[in-house]
Amino acid sequence: MSAYPHRHLLGIEPLEPAHIQAILDTADGLREVLDRPIKKVPTLRGKTVVNLFYEPSTRTRSSFEVAQKVLSADSLSIAAAASSVQKGETLLDTVKNLEAMNPDMVVIRHASSGAPHFLARHCRSAIVNAGDGAHEHPTQALLDALTLRQKKGRLKGLRVAIVGDILHSRVARSNVWLLSKMGAEVVLCAPPTLMPPGIEALAPVTYRIEEALEGADAIMMLRIQTERMTGAYFPSTREFHVRFGLTEERVRRARRDVLILHPGPMNRGVEIASEVADGPASVILDQVTNGVLVRMAVLYLLLGGGEAA
Amino acid sequence: MSAYPHRHLLGIEPLEPAHIQAILDTADGLREVLDRPIKKVPTLRGKTVVNLFYEPSTRTRSSFEVAQKVLSADSLSIAAAASSVQKGETLLDTVKNLEAMNPDMVVIRHASSGAPHFLARHCRSAIVNAGDGAHEHPTQALLDALTLRQKKGRLKGLRVAIVGDILHSRVARSNVWLLSKMGAEVVLCAPPTLMPPGIEALAPVTYRIEEALEGADAIMMLRIQTERMTGAYFPSTREFHVRFGLTEERVRRARRDVLILHPGPMNRGVEIASEVADGPASVILDQVTNGVLVRMAVLYLLLGGGEAA
Amino acid sequence: MSAYPHRHLLGIEPLEPAHIQAILDTADGLREVLDRPIKKVPTLRGKTVVNLFYEPSTRTRSSFEVAQKVLSADSLSIAAAASSVQKGETLLDTVKNLEAMNPDMVVIRHASSGAPHFLARHCRSAIVNAGDGAHEHPTQALLDALTLRQKKGRLKGLRVAIVGDILHSRVARSNVWLLSKMGAEVVLCAPPTLMPPGIEALAPVTYRIEEALEGADAIMMLRIQTERMTGAYFPSTREFHVRFGLTEERVRRARRDVLILHPGPMNRGVEIASEVADGPASVILDQVTNGVLVRMAVLYLLLGGGEAA
Repeated sequence: MSAYPHRHLLGIEPLEPAHIQAILDTADGLREVLDRPIKKVPTLRGKTVVNLFYEPSTRTRSSFEVAQKVLSADSLSIAAAASSVQKGETLLDTVKNLEAMNPDMVVIRHASSGAPHFLARHCRSAIVNAGDGAHEHPTQALLDALTLRQKKGRLKGLRVAIVGDILHSRVARSNVWLLSKMGAEVVLCAPPTLMPPGIEALAPVTYRIEEALEGADAIMMLRIQTERMTGAYFPSTREFHVRFGLTEERVRRARRDVLILHPGPMNRGVEIASEVADGPASVILDQVTNGVLVRMAVLYLLLGGGEAA
Repeated sequence: MSAYPHRHLLGIEPLEPAHIQAILDTADGLREVLDRPIKKVPTLRGKTVVNLFYEPSTRTRSSFEVAQKVLSADSLSIAAAASSVQKGETLLDTVKNLEAMNPDMVVIRHASSGAPHFLARHCRSAIVNAGDGAHEHPTQALLDALTLRQKKGRLKGLRVAIVGDILHSRVARSNVWLLSKMGAEVVLCAPPTLMPPGIEALAPVTYRIEEALEGADAIMMLRIQTERMTGAYFPSTREFHVRFGLTEERVRRARRDVLILHPGPMNRGVEIASEVADGPASVILDQVTNGVLVRMAVLYLLLGGGEAA
Repeated sequence: MSAYPHRHLLGIEPLEPAHIQAILDTADGLREVLDRPIKKVPTLRGKTVVNLFYEPSTRTRSSFEVAQKVLSADSLSIAAAASSVQKGETLLDTVKNLEAMNPDMVVIRHASSGAPHFLARHCRSAIVNAGDGAHEHPTQALLDALTLRQKKGRLKGLRVAIVGDILHSRVARSNVWLLSKMGAEVVLCAPPTLMPPGIEALAPVTYRIEEALEGADAIMMLRIQTERMTGAYFPSTREFHVRFGLTEERVRRARRDVLILHPGPMNRGVEIASEVADGPASVILDQVTNGVLVRMAVLYLLLGGGEAA
């Protein structure tokens, strides 16, 4: 039986710890490919992947595209704003049509929670969730975990603080699932207006960042959508920084060997001070490199098998 | 002499039946490539194709791009809205410039009828018309024909009803040419405001869908541009559906083994009911798969020759 | 020691004549690749190039992409308008993030002068300037030089008139540097409002096109941004054509074997008459072909080395 027995990657919630570990181990095994002078293996030659993005994304889409090129898969990237969607076609019709062109995988980002699951029920292709509404963003949580494991040697027993706009964050949700399953201890911190009701069933909650950071092995800062800082959720970006911004002083509450993570793009001076983002504890750029590796691992596990990398 | 003796594919009108048959036979011959685990052949390695789209298109552009990747051609796709066109350059200058980069083929979609013919007169590259105004869309008619022939074993003698916005449809025009040349019997059906004057010289016309469907072997529904349903051409989408929408009840007027085609994207509940679009007679997704095959055939016949697929 | 000892191509100003010659010689050496039936060599297989364009461009971006495909490099093209930039990320963060995906080169176009130099100071990747504000556009000057050398056999001693909107033109600036370094004689011509103050320190200046063209071996016309022809810089496009447009009559003031260059896209009837653009002296399309070659040469010199072309 395969180490990763699923046909899709829809979210972290339905995965068992062994499946998560299989993806992380595969990603680690592929790491040496990126260090070669010729960063390309023929593993997925002749496989076609459609990247279907209904929300703008440079970071995640580029990371998937690079992973596809390294493994020699063919990519077809569709920004849905410029597509048939504008002509009123339904999501299912769009994907059924793409599927009739025989791709092996569809990577989808969509504003509606559950869109990838809906496709998985109705389509033949392997579906990878690249972010669905405020629900899940599994490859982000996997790359975060790969980074923690790379730097700390383990996930089990780590104390991880997740700080910022928890309410709108699929990154937070996937990370809570993943870290809990792998035996880490998570604490969530946000202003009351940006904390989803009922979340304390999944992880302990605090509204004081100082408390969240106390003894943390890792701090995951979330991106603040500054368009939300207009009074509805929070008075201003300046006020947010004063109350919840990650400053050097606050970092000192965490363990001395704490790691700082951020999924990007960062608002410097809002949720994170520049000295922290660029400081020695920051692993923000390692996350990006690990993002390519995690996506290569997912492509490999869902499509590969045959040829060795 | 080659089975397809032309340097370009500008439209169906100038083709002889033998040329159409050569394209369809080539497409059928390439079908097994898409069933391989590694869906890629080196036939057009080192050939470059420019996809120059002056109108938005996901479906047709993706289909051409997939065909190019399967045959290992290099693609350069240009959405003209984001291009030099905005800077006031003429169509001919844009294409001459692209041509100076030595592409082997230019696939063009343009809002002006005759734009591809103009380019064919002034350029060295092979030109493929991917839709020019309300004039022709030859690869769409070819994929429709490939689908009919695949399912019925022949084109000759088939009775085909084409229903919807005939006035603005290059798909209808190319299909009327192709089906007539190949010995099928076409009947056109539209509201009077959406029927081009003089079209009855090419094919019989009716304004009642029930009459058009009587005894049909195939029904080609055309996409309604809902922005036209504002009184100028038709009172409302609802009224259109009542008078011309393809419902299960209406399908019963056709032959029992009738095929339902639609070029997409569909407006479900406007020109076609969902039960019909998803029903057993629908070959709408076969059309999409055949679209890739027809475009592979055109690429192969215009550029290939050397290596076998 | 390599013929081109730099890690980046940021501009023409810092280059020595021997470096410019190395690029031109390499481009000439690659010319035969474009004449092969299979226009592809494996030289840069497994190398990844990010094309990061913060200003719209079809011409330059396509030329870089074609060069990358011919040399078998993988490309990732990012139109910054659709990217994280909109989400408020800094240029450095965007590029650091891209860099964490391990590309070998970043080709950047940016509205700010010096943006590529800033990146070169802070990044590991090779940086190629594809146009920075009104500062430099080195590959354009190199392709112009390649075209002149191809047609005239030399650069030294040529008299070259550069005519048009000098003020806003990075093309003019890079060409002044390159031609002066290589021993050509440059004369600049523009209306006084479109001539940058102090430029006469670099090359002689005239406000009369007839004087500029007198005895010229080559005429480089610059593109007029017609949105500037609204009174602020010049009364109208028509007035511009009357005073500074390149007509057949004016061309007769130059040498009989004069060459006409234009970086495109052209405004026919504004800065250049159609008879001149399409006449026998025009090498405008040769420039485009040479653009691909120059970019291949830059890719090869900065990334290649190993395998022969």
